[in-house]
This record gives sequence, structure tokens and C-alpha cells, in this order.
Amino acid sequence: MATRTADLQIHVCPKYHAAIELVGRRWTGAILSAMLMGATRFTDIIHAVPGLSDRLLSERLKELEQAEIVERIVHPETPVRIEYKLTQKGHELNTAVTALSDWAARWSE
Amino acid sequence: MATRTADLQIHVCPKYHAAIELVGRRWTGAILSAMLMGATRFTDIIHAVPGLSDRLLSERLKELEQAEIVERIVHPETPVRIEYKLTQKGHELNTAVTALSDWAARWSE
Repeated sequence: MATRTADLQIHVCPKYHAAIELVGRRWTGAILSAMLMGATRFTDIIHAVPGLSDRLLSERLKELEQAEIVERIVHPETPVRIEYKLTQKGHELNTAVTALSDWAARWSE
Repeated sequence: MATRTADLQIHVCPKYHAAIELVGRRWTGAILSAMLMGATRFTDIIHAVPGLSDRLLSERLKELEQAEIVERIVHPETPVRIEYKLTQKGHELNTAVTALSDWAARWSE
């Protein structure tokens, strides 16, 4: 039987691999979900994700900024107001997040 | 402006959160992609994912078995042949994996 599939050549796409490693990083998927639902303030994101610490949220937001998925906007008011917004690239993650959400709803006990 | 969104109540679905933490674990997303493309043998999966070690693939396959996403099938031949197959639950991850793949193709430089 071994020969039958000896020439099976499957290669995982490196772009997909990089994407799932980024989006799938611990807490990141939950943060993205909260932002896709409309959370833009640091405290709103923290409250949306039980167990997430300030330190980790800062770290993850920085990673997402570097990946151009999130944009940090500073409103020069008093006191200064900071918002985190999804870029177009970030918003387009909605399809994947929704698909996984649907899967989770279908298959979770 | 603070009061405008003071009662914003966003909660990330715990089922989705558990799903993304499972599927997004390091290497797991790539392993699933290889299996969705038809890899069923340990060596085929290893070859499909550059950098993946035997030890980590074993670990991840066990986690996916526990989550009932992968089924380990032992064919009582000589030598014994072992296959890893996606369950129905596993196959249904295809929509989410494809959505993320498409996103990655669109947005990777």
C-alpha cells in the first residue's frame, strides 16, 4: 500500500501558516473577535475577554499593529483618548472568525 | 465621549475562544490544513509542514484526537499501517481554514 501514496506531495501554504500562527496566538483570536464586535477601547476589550491581562492585551495589540491589522488612534483631547481600530485588513478577518464561531457553536457540547 | 460607550457590553463567546485556542495552537493550524488537503500518514503530514518535528506532530495529533477532530486508525497489516483521518467535526473546519487561507493570500506581501 505504501507505493500508492508514495508520491503524495502536499505543502501547506506558508502565507496561511503565518496567518494562523498570528491570529491563533494565545488571546489574539479572542481580541479580534471583541474588536470585530465593535470594541475599540482598551478597557472594553479587556472586559470582553475574561482572564486577559493588561500586559498581554498591550503586547497583542502591538503585534496586531505591526501586522497592520489594528490601528492605534490617539485623540488629542483632555484626557487623551486612545482607540484601537481594525484596518481594512483586520475587518476582512471577519469571514474566518465567523466561520470558526459557527463551527464552535455547532460542535461544542 | 466616555459616557457614550460606557454601557458597551461585548462578550467574546467562550466556545469560539476555546476553538481558536485549540485550532490556533502552534503548528495545529498547519497540520489541519495538510490533513484537509488529504494527508493521512504521519510522514506525509511532516513533509507538508516545514519545521514540524515528530515529537510536536505526535503531541498535536493526540490533542486533536482528544478534541474528536482527528481519528487514529490502525490497519492490522504487516507492517502495521496507521492513518490519521479527520472526523466529520474535523472536515467541517474546512470553511474556516479556507477563509483564513483566502485572507492570507489577499493580504500577504
